[in-house]
Amino acid sequence: MDTSIICPRFETAISLLSQRWTGLIIYQLLSGSQRFSELTEIIGISGRLLSERLKRLEAQGLITRTVYPETPVRIEYALTEKGRSLQPVMDEIQNWSQVWIDPTEKSNE
Amino acid sequence: MDTSIICPRFETAISLLSQRWTGLIIYQLLSGSQRFSELTEIIGISGRLLSERLKRLEAQGLITRTVYPETPVRIEYALTEKGRSLQPVMDEIQNWSQVWIDPTEKSNE
Repeated sequence: MDTSIICPRFETAISLLSQRWTGLIIYQLLSGSQRFSELTEIIGISGRLLSERLKRLEAQGLITRTVYPETPVRIEYALTEKGRSLQPVMDEIQNWSQVWIDPTEKSNE
Repeated sequence: MDTSIICPRFETAISLLSQRWTGLIIYQLLSGSQRFSELTEIIGISGRLLSERLKRLEAQGLITRTVYPETPVRIEYALTEKGRSLQPVMDEIQNWSQVWIDPTEKSNE
């Protein structure tokens, strides 16, 4: 892997994936479409922040937002094919974390 | 992959990897140890920011800092085994980026 010049595609991908909460949202949606409330609860971030992140992920073509015209309205978020194809990245992060991360370790933001 | 509760190790790993510039620094050091000036040039960030990131990566056990008592002093940064074992993660991000990232696309930070 000659990395004297950083591949622009890789650089864009890693900065996209490095956006705070993006990885966790994608990881969470890999188990299937979910509602907003489920995501805020499991990931543990504010509705305002999650809404902003989901809009950006939608704009980046990683997720879809589907509105079911029921009463009350139901809105579900799901990964696109582009999003789902991040599964191998998440699997490798999971594998690495099982070997190298001490469960009590915090990433000290 | 049951993700109703997010695995704490995965969460720590992804938030560690999501810290701005961490991915690029690790990616860059996968091709071998490098000096500070080489890293600032290739990654394109300020010396102050890079120095802060390198200190954190050293504290997280991902890199080593070696001082060669020459004139002038030579300081090199290299990945530890923990750092090098992120190679599969970087490879998968690279693979994904080749398929899904348009070279002109910016991650619109």
